[in-house]
Amino acid sequence: MSWNRKHLLDIESLSPEEINTVLDTARAFKAVGERAIKKVPALRGKTVINLFIEPSTRTRISFELAAQRLTADIINFTAEASSLKKGETLKDTARNLEALNADIIIIRHSATGAAHFLSRFLNASVINAGDGAHEHPTQALLDTYTIRERKGKIAGLKVTILGDILYSRVARSNIWALLKLGAHVTLCGPSTLVPKVFEKMGCRVTHNVEEAIADADIINLLRIQHERQRKSMFPSLGEYTSLFGLNKKRLAITKPDALIMHPGPINRGVEIDSEIADCGRSVILEQVTNGLAVRMAVLFLINGGKGPQEVG
Amino acid sequence: MSWNRKHLLDIESLSPEEINTVLDTARAFKAVGERAIKKVPALRGKTVINLFIEPSTRTRISFELAAQRLTADIINFTAEASSLKKGETLKDTARNLEALNADIIIIRHSATGAAHFLSRFLNASVINAGDGAHEHPTQALLDTYTIRERKGKIAGLKVTILGDILYSRVARSNIWALLKLGAHVTLCGPSTLVPKVFEKMGCRVTHNVEEAIADADIINLLRIQHERQRKSMFPSLGEYTSLFGLNKKRLAITKPDALIMHPGPINRGVEIDSEIADCGRSVILEQVTNGLAVRMAVLFLINGGKGPQEVG
Amino acid sequence: MSWNRKHLLDIESLSPEEINTVLDTARAFKAVGERAIKKVPALRGKTVINLFIEPSTRTRISFELAAQRLTADIINFTAEASSLKKGETLKDTARNLEALNADIIIIRHSATGAAHFLSRFLNASVINAGDGAHEHPTQALLDTYTIRERKGKIAGLKVTILGDILYSRVARSNIWALLKLGAHVTLCGPSTLVPKVFEKMGCRVTHNVEEAIADADIINLLRIQHERQRKSMFPSLGEYTSLFGLNKKRLAITKPDALIMHPGPINRGVEIDSEIADCGRSVILEQVTNGLAVRMAVLFLINGGKGPQEVG
Repeated sequence: MSWNRKHLLDIESLSPEEINTVLDTARAFKAVGERAIKKVPALRGKTVINLFIEPSTRTRISFELAAQRLTADIINFTAEASSLKKGETLKDTARNLEALNADIIIIRHSATGAAHFLSRFLNASVINAGDGAHEHPTQALLDTYTIRERKGKIAGLKVTILGDILYSRVARSNIWALLKLGAHVTLCGPSTLVPKVFEKMGCRVTHNVEEAIADADIINLLRIQHERQRKSMFPSLGEYTSLFGLNKKRLAITKPDALIMHPGPINRGVEIDSEIADCGRSVILEQVTNGLAVRMAVLFLINGGKGPQEVG
Repeated sequence: MSWNRKHLLDIESLSPEEINTVLDTARAFKAVGERAIKKVPALRGKTVINLFIEPSTRTRISFELAAQRLTADIINFTAEASSLKKGETLKDTARNLEALNADIIIIRHSATGAAHFLSRFLNASVINAGDGAHEHPTQALLDTYTIRERKGKIAGLKVTILGDILYSRVARSNIWALLKLGAHVTLCGPSTLVPKVFEKMGCRVTHNVEEAIADADIINLLRIQHERQRKSMFPSLGEYTSLFGLNKKRLAITKPDALIMHPGPINRGVEIDSEIADCGRSVILEQVTNGLAVRMAVLFLINGGKGPQEVG
Repeated sequence: MSWNRKHLLDIESLSPEEINTVLDTARAFKAVGERAIKKVPALRGKTVINLFIEPSTRTRISFELAAQRLTADIINFTAEASSLKKGETLKDTARNLEALNADIIIIRHSATGAAHFLSRFLNASVINAGDGAHEHPTQALLDTYTIRERKGKIAGLKVTILGDILYSRVARSNIWALLKLGAHVTLCGPSTLVPKVFEKMGCRVTHNVEEAIADADIINLLRIQHERQRKSMFPSLGEYTSLFGLNKKRLAITKPDALIMHPGPINRGVEIDSEIADCGRSVILEQVTNGLAVRMAVLFLINGGKGPQEVG
């Protein structure tokens, strides 16, 4: 196995082999995480910067811990306390961080294409930690990792993604990863948020939740992203819960070994019943744990690692 | 000496032997702190999270420095920049942090019982860094450490705690620690804030400041916690200073070797005259220094250390 | 070469030899920064605190990275999340940080003299990271370093500083450093912001931009500091740009090897044309890179290092 990319900008441009290299490398790092001393010196002396222009806690902390485990130095740069407030452009901010000898810049931004934009002029490596409604590649990689670990494969599985697909970078990255690895993808939600156009990507689209979940091996529930929706188009929260929320009655018609996933943070009682979030078929917390290993793998590969065979 | 607890949730449930194990271990770490290289690798590869839902600087930084000295990785998670804002429950936040392989979670929260609550469902260790008006165990341990270091003992000493006892977690934890180690505790302040019910814990209660301080070996002044008081009940700041503030005239009636303590941050000219805060009998800054050693000891013991004999 | 100072408070009190010791030590650290593993253990076990009472990103991060490279432990203490909000004085905050065994305190404050003030009562070392409109010594050192590296010398060079001189700590520190090292300094800007009194320091003062830049070897453009100006006195931004902004037409009259400098963050289209900021004569990003080496040098020397001969 051999990785040759300097950046991780999206899933769309990755080959199935590249995705598998990340997943295999993550598996090797997960084993490291189970040791008493979880640290490895792979990125000693490297500088990683979390450039988070859009607020986030869980992704930022996950990258921060991943970098610490690899013995990198990591700095958080958030929009609140930044020179961006003084009118500096994103390009200038990024070039200044690079001038501080940053080796890897992890960017979260509300604008689609922000990570690609940085990669065009920086010598530092760029990791996309979410750009607008476009992509969130490490989330898709950790979701895919979790499915593969639990089900032993991806190809041939039926995966249903349920919720606000149109505005979801998580959905978009997951669709790319799953299709590339041979899964069958069903998208479900209100017609305003799950337009038929997604069929052109190769997905099944349905607005009937029972149809979407009845034969699924995996049900991935998206967080309702209040902030990204136009209010007039959307059913109210109560209507969403009633029409699409995963409750006990709906769970009863799913396959007994179907797994429940969610990228978090969950809205208990909205897109998912509280009991279901905590039941044995929910792998929501495993996703978080796997996210750490996946992000270690991405940092390691982006920094010049070739694959799992190099993880000590 | 042998410590066997996984969490530090309160002082109330500790035995005198356990308290002494912490103090003796802190003494060993204080010696480490005086070396040129103050770091020890006791927690190398461990992940510590400062989960501070209520603002704090001094306690958070003290724990952060303590963890760094022990070579742990430490992450700050504050309410301002958190998924709690997105409606996630405290339980889900804590379980997510644990899923990121956190070994120790230090929690500061405005709700009584928050640390106990986490300890009931987490596998990670939990340290209470202050829960509402309930307890602040590391503050009591560092206060007790300071007294023992200066006076050579705790048993038989007369300790007066002066101020807003009713709403003070510092007071409550100190009372438990001092009584368990055999001190005589006097509580003093306005009757609205120092109700007679504290006599049932085994303390003397008085609303006469001269009576409270005349025979004290230790005078521990609490910070006036504006934010926790109901306005109508309380004397104004000016009235408090006049009735209970420690000034030169009052200091004159105390024992010449009585020590002045304060958990900080101090309100100069309110609960304490500026000159007294800086005088030779004030041990306020020693408390801060000792807090670092005490918190190193707590992290070390909670992580599986048995006692001072194991500090290198 | 031998450095003997415990603090770095200003440039005014440094000798030319001391300035050169910092620059030579920075050069040694810049070589370290070009290695694969950029870290050196010079400050292992030392605690550095970024006490930033006035917001800043670039300077704070530069110091944070410098400390990490030297293997120090570093803590950020910002005004937003601090006990200063609870009414604690700056003196008490600083003494508390020292009681936490801080070895070096880096202070940024809106009040002139804040760093000098701390140095009078602290045992810890103090570094001034900008105090009001007074001094910003590490900025001047990195500017001087950049000039010396590019031009091979300082003595005899003609350096023009353009902009809001009166309210600029960057200007003040640069003037001191340049004059001490034998440069000829010209100050230029609106008469409200560049009073004739600066001639008494030994500078040339002019309000004619063409005159100021025609024979300059170095043109250092200051950021327009909106927040420090009284509105009624000042030309509008548009007027400033028209009268003093560096544009192509003005660039054409400068010497072909004149370097363009700016402490950042730049206001593109205000004090500098966007193209000029990015042209081959601009050393703006080199200044940022050199700032890291200069701050490593300052931390190293303040901590007891004697000079470049000790950098491994």
